[in-house]
Amino acid sequence: MLIGGRHYRSIWLDEASGRLRIIDQTRLPFALEVCSLDTLEDVADAISTMKVRGAPLIGATAAHGLALALDADPGDVALDRAQARLRRTRPTAINLAWALDRVLRAVAPIPPERRAERAREEAIAICDEDVTTCAAIGDHGLAILRDTASTSSEKPLQILTHCNAGWLATVDWGTALAPVYKAHDDGIPLHVWVDETRPRNQGASLTAFELREHGVPHTVVVDNAGGHLMQRGQVDLVLVGSDRTTASGDVCNKIGTYLKALAAHANGIPFYVALPVSSIDWSIDDGIRDIPIEERQADEVRLVSVRRSDGRIDRVELFGDESPVANPAFDVTPARYVSGLITELGVFATDRAGMRDLLDRVRSRAASPVAGR
Amino acid sequence: MLIGGRHYRSIWLDEASGRLRIIDQTRLPFALEVCSLDTLEDVADAISTMKVRGAPLIGATAAHGLALALDADPGDVALDRAQARLRRTRPTAINLAWALDRVLRAVAPIPPERRAERAREEAIAICDEDVTTCAAIGDHGLAILRDTASTSSEKPLQILTHCNAGWLATVDWGTALAPVYKAHDDGIPLHVWVDETRPRNQGASLTAFELREHGVPHTVVVDNAGGHLMQRGQVDLVLVGSDRTTASGDVCNKIGTYLKALAAHANGIPFYVALPVSSIDWSIDDGIRDIPIEERQADEVRLVSVRRSDGRIDRVELFGDESPVANPAFDVTPARYVSGLITELGVFATDRAGMRDLLDRVRSRAASPVAGR
Repeated sequence: MLIGGRHYRSIWLDEASGRLRIIDQTRLPFALEVCSLDTLEDVADAISTMKVRGAPLIGATAAHGLALALDADPGDVALDRAQARLRRTRPTAINLAWALDRVLRAVAPIPPERRAERAREEAIAICDEDVTTCAAIGDHGLAILRDTASTSSEKPLQILTHCNAGWLATVDWGTALAPVYKAHDDGIPLHVWVDETRPRNQGASLTAFELREHGVPHTVVVDNAGGHLMQRGQVDLVLVGSDRTTASGDVCNKIGTYLKALAAHANGIPFYVALPVSSIDWSIDDGIRDIPIEERQADEVRLVSVRRSDGRIDRVELFGDESPVANPAFDVTPARYVSGLITELGVFATDRAGMRDLLDRVRSRAASPVAGR
Repeated sequence: MLIGGRHYRSIWLDEASGRLRIIDQTRLPFALEVCSLDTLEDVADAISTMKVRGAPLIGATAAHGLALALDADPGDVALDRAQARLRRTRPTAINLAWALDRVLRAVAPIPPERRAERAREEAIAICDEDVTTCAAIGDHGLAILRDTASTSSEKPLQILTHCNAGWLATVDWGTALAPVYKAHDDGIPLHVWVDETRPRNQGASLTAFELREHGVPHTVVVDNAGGHLMQRGQVDLVLVGSDRTTASGDVCNKIGTYLKALAAHANGIPFYVALPVSSIDWSIDDGIRDIPIEERQADEVRLVSVRRSDGRIDRVELFGDESPVANPAFDVTPARYVSGLITELGVFATDRAGMRDLLDRVRSRAASPVAGR
């Protein structure tokens, strides 16, 4: 998508040097800084400090991380150590494990000297497929936005989103924002309410940045405001991403998503989740019981990156360290509050029939000759 | 209540000088700064910039503001101008109008030369009654906390609160926190989840400060976390204050309260509102239709007071001003989500019978010889 009119992906191999490049998302929105990841440790650090974040992008970056590790040492011991190191960086997003497993399957059976190249091919394929997947999510979501826009009044379609499930969370297009970009490009008048998304403010820092650079009308609100907006008829549809979704349709996403789902439900507003099917964990049903919720450090709540009155970017204290802080990073929205899952394979209800239908589609795709496209 | 072991009220007349003193709440938690309000404009400014905030304290401060205005000019024209000036400072809290009307009733019929003294007497009475009222709210709430603690397990009673409805929001004791202080002092083991409460962070800055100074165990969380905590059984009871409550029991309170009420309802957790009956607006029924919601400026979301890495307190940018911001300051929780109103007259259900009962009690108190005590 666009920054200053120029097309970017969130991760790429530099054409001239071949080095792996990312946008350091901890510096946005104040500075656009591109940095290189040259080693396994660079990649692990970038994921755990959230220079890259968003389930699909974490997976894509980790895949490249294995390739970098194999450049340094392609042996079995090093490979195993590298995949374990990367797997530990973030515990919740299933794409991380999915991407690592996919690269491991490709490289484990072949001779060490060919592994790095093969891993890099696979990482590139994961990135390219992610773009195709997100574009398809955008097309399926576009149909929903078009339907909702035609039933809503003359006003622009009002969409609320939480956190950042835009192109910065994927390789390009995004998940929840892909339909927004497609609808905007298609001439559907719309406006996005952007939840700030404490503690890391990905909404105010990343989603607002993305939408602004693409020219999509939007307004930033604090996380507390969404219920009020829905109660007052100012939201037509809620659209969010997912870090992990269970076989029964329970959706794990950024902390605070569940509160927005409850408000949408109480006010009769559709609540859609946009996600690649790779983020569905078919091995578990009950999201509340079975999804581990990452507890991140207190300083993430207490400290925040800002621009000071003297123009310098600084990491500052919102409050002192005298009081304890808890920082659960995700929550689970039970399937009954979800109107539908917007995937690259179409839109599916989160009831028993819908999820069975989706699983059938996933299995038939896996069995088909174009598997993995 | 206590700061550093010394007893404070949030507003007082200095014994030696007779000057009106407040704690500048915009400087907390980093600095405890007491300042003097000497003129009508000082008071109006303190209210609108939120050096003082919280419905009961706003009313008490405005009453003192009228006395200061009458010191300068006790004539009818000046009196009318002063009350209009103060009334405009914050549109939502009904205590502001209630306190101003009460002082006006006392001073309007008497000769100008006696008005200032009479207004000050009334302001002092309003402050003293607020302390009595809050202590009574604390006693009635204590009974609920004791009952809930005895039915919950061995663990400390887990209470979640939003914003600051503590002693800093009143003259002393607080509304929602009065029962917490009484229960803690009474030896009931408890722990308070403190919502940060964006955009002004009154939870992290004021509630955590209050609880810490009083020795009450607590943990700060972002506003997004409450739904997750309730879903996981980590909250036994939600306790908040109110800026205005309608005759039908709809509760207007700090933005985000409604989301916590929905989460409490969805998870079968009691949701109590603690308030003085003076904050009930008996002239309206439908809170969503009839309560004006203050839309505050965008900079309140975008800018935040912090302590920089060099130790200086600064007002810094969380994000730039390139994106529009909306900032509704309050929301309305419909009566059906409220388990009960904890008032100085007892605890009342928010159904038709409960609210009629409460109105009867208010009327019989007003008619009794100890009216206004």
